[in-house]
Amino acid sequence: MYSHFIVLLTDFGEGSIYVGEMKGVILGINPDANIINLTHNVKSYDIVQASFLLKKSYTYFPRNSIFLSVIDPEVGSGRLLVAVKTRNYIFVGPDNGLLYPTVNEDKIEISVSIENKTYFLSNSSWTFHGRDILAPVAAYLSKGLAIEKIGPRVEHLQSLEIPNPIIRKDIISCKAIFIDNFGNIVTNIKRGSIVKEITSGLILVELFSNNRCYQIPITNTYSDVGEGKPLALFNSFDCLEIAVNRGNAAGYLKIKEKSELRLKLKETKKT
Amino acid sequence: MYSHFIVLLTDFGEGSIYVGEMKGVILGINPDANIINLTHNVKSYDIVQASFLLKKSYTYFPRNSIFLSVIDPEVGSGRLLVAVKTRNYIFVGPDNGLLYPTVNEDKIEISVSIENKTYFLSNSSWTFHGRDILAPVAAYLSKGLAIEKIGPRVEHLQSLEIPNPIIRKDIISCKAIFIDNFGNIVTNIKRGSIVKEITSGLILVELFSNNRCYQIPITNTYSDVGEGKPLALFNSFDCLEIAVNRGNAAGYLKIKEKSELRLKLKETKKT
Amino acid sequence: MYSHFIVLLTDFGEGSIYVGEMKGVILGINPDANIINLTHNVKSYDIVQASFLLKKSYTYFPRNSIFLSVIDPEVGSGRLLVAVKTRNYIFVGPDNGLLYPTVNEDKIEISVSIENKTYFLSNSSWTFHGRDILAPVAAYLSKGLAIEKIGPRVEHLQSLEIPNPIIRKDIISCKAIFIDNFGNIVTNIKRGSIVKEITSGLILVELFSNNRCYQIPITNTYSDVGEGKPLALFNSFDCLEIAVNRGNAAGYLKIKEKSELRLKLKETKKT
Repeated sequence: MYSHFIVLLTDFGEGSIYVGEMKGVILGINPDANIINLTHNVKSYDIVQASFLLKKSYTYFPRNSIFLSVIDPEVGSGRLLVAVKTRNYIFVGPDNGLLYPTVNEDKIEISVSIENKTYFLSNSSWTFHGRDILAPVAAYLSKGLAIEKIGPRVEHLQSLEIPNPIIRKDIISCKAIFIDNFGNIVTNIKRGSIVKEITSGLILVELFSNNRCYQIPITNTYSDVGEGKPLALFNSFDCLEIAVNRGNAAGYLKIKEKSELRLKLKETKKT
Repeated sequence: MYSHFIVLLTDFGEGSIYVGEMKGVILGINPDANIINLTHNVKSYDIVQASFLLKKSYTYFPRNSIFLSVIDPEVGSGRLLVAVKTRNYIFVGPDNGLLYPTVNEDKIEISVSIENKTYFLSNSSWTFHGRDILAPVAAYLSKGLAIEKIGPRVEHLQSLEIPNPIIRKDIISCKAIFIDNFGNIVTNIKRGSIVKEITSGLILVELFSNNRCYQIPITNTYSDVGEGKPLALFNSFDCLEIAVNRGNAAGYLKIKEKSELRLKLKETKKT
Repeated sequence: MYSHFIVLLTDFGEGSIYVGEMKGVILGINPDANIINLTHNVKSYDIVQASFLLKKSYTYFPRNSIFLSVIDPEVGSGRLLVAVKTRNYIFVGPDNGLLYPTVNEDKIEISVSIENKTYFLSNSSWTFHGRDILAPVAAYLSKGLAIEKIGPRVEHLQSLEIPNPIIRKDIISCKAIFIDNFGNIVTNIKRGSIVKEITSGLILVELFSNNRCYQIPITNTYSDVGEGKPLALFNSFDCLEIAVNRGNAAGYLKIKEKSELRLKLKETKKT
């Protein structure tokens, strides 16, 4: 009922020495742990983005994997640290909403507040609970420690809702919830949520940005438009994504993470 | 005749969550896979750079390693996905030329088109075949699946030639095929290809860039010139590299990846 | 007395293909090696920063881990490569001071100059001893090779002192020895070194930067001040750090790595 896979998600920045230190701590407790980086490139302090990415990705990991998530701007303050056992996984992290959408989707079996100092590093810092508390707790869990040993039960986790797009008249206000390294702009518009059935090639997105209006076809693949041309598609997260074939949409459209986007869907004939 | 080493090469950007998802998929199929990042920093969509880096690096990995390469701007279109068994390794990736120089060098034993859906994730996306098709196929191969099971034989792979420098009169036109994190500019001039024997210290490269001419000595090591001074050497890829001792040559010379460089070799006496 | 953990520290940049090649070489020699990235984001050529980060981090790793550190601007020149066995660990790297503060702290048992070509790659380059010499040597050590086999004893390692802050009158001159991905500015002021006892909330740091004077409270946590406000705290390295709550201090204060900072401590009442 446990596994040696520990999956890391942080906003420390890829290759941060803080990640290295956490790995050292884990392997000191469980030398057989297999530590996988989900990503460390979450935008600094962006709990909403992290909760989105976690929810979109956790099902790709082996059952019983332990997810260790540290996006924790309130480290050292009164916020709780929690361990949550769901139907298929274990999650540890700060109780700031980050875990909420995911553990609810996978169904919570038990949540505890991480309080038993037996499982902490001996000299815990004020500013790096990821290394000093969460990493050792995840390591002990990966060795089969019963979650109940870590601390008392918690009935209610801090809630967080990944924002939904808002429709007023025919204008959809959505968010650039994540921008990947290609500059692809991932929005919070889920497949099937706005338009019941979108037929490829027949619908354009009109994107209003920087006082311009861009007419962007909805396609299945990046290469359905010419090189350097914009497109929209439902991506591997099953969300609407604005991209540029072999280009960088975020640069092209001057859009940053967390930006509000205004879209309009427009049915048209292929020309 | 197979190994549990799976080596990843992509243009997803280091620390991309897409890489994390691929690792989750692989470990779900083969929990004993040992996944190694070759690099994820290939310039976006740059198949030539990726094919160069793969060819320069693959021999450093254990025999029978499985290379999973995803530089795939045409994902979801008609291009094939292939698995290629060579004398010493297995390579999987899109059939867009990326694998061509390497598998030819190592000698192809069998190539197949990846078509058997038994080995795909059940809900394959249009836009992320790396996660949904190539990762699971690599994982099954790492467990010993016979390559013939994956799909029908392919006789001809998409070809790609890593460009060679061109010499007109005494001017060498070459390419900045890769620039590393130090700003070292790696060219496509192979050791021994242009000048049969280059004697350290006796030859200068004249580099024409931005309407300036730089006289740069050919040395063995970075510290053969003063701090902040440019130099050229045959590097660990056995290619001519322009560098600055303890500096950043790409910044200093204002040269970007894929730029054309014009050089002239000039024999001289040490002064 | 040895372990299969090999911890990498370089200035190659995260995700560098050079790191990938080193891992390939290690696993070719010891397929059971467990390779952990401490960080590859050391500022290029910054031996002082690397020695600081290594000293602050090594104790978090399992006993007998082998640290393979490559910040080596003089590669190929006359500098030695060394392997050092300390009380609890083994360190390999160039003899340029990088290892000095750490191996002295952990107490040197034996140091050798890496010279026995039996343990090198067969065609060693001039410019990448990390891959061609240090990686294979670390791999053989991780399989239990006696350190004495690698080369002759070295009595004196190249020394390096991590600079201490300097106090003149009541002005403290310190260094931005490391800036993390959040923009937190880590200084070389150790806890307890300047002020014997710093009581949270009662002391301000006055930071002189860009002809401005910033009054910054010393706190325990980042969230002890309002969002976007600067603060100073003793961080997880036990050093004074200048930060901005949910912000980027280096950007806010326009401070770069290696910058000199001038501070003054000022006792005050909470207002």
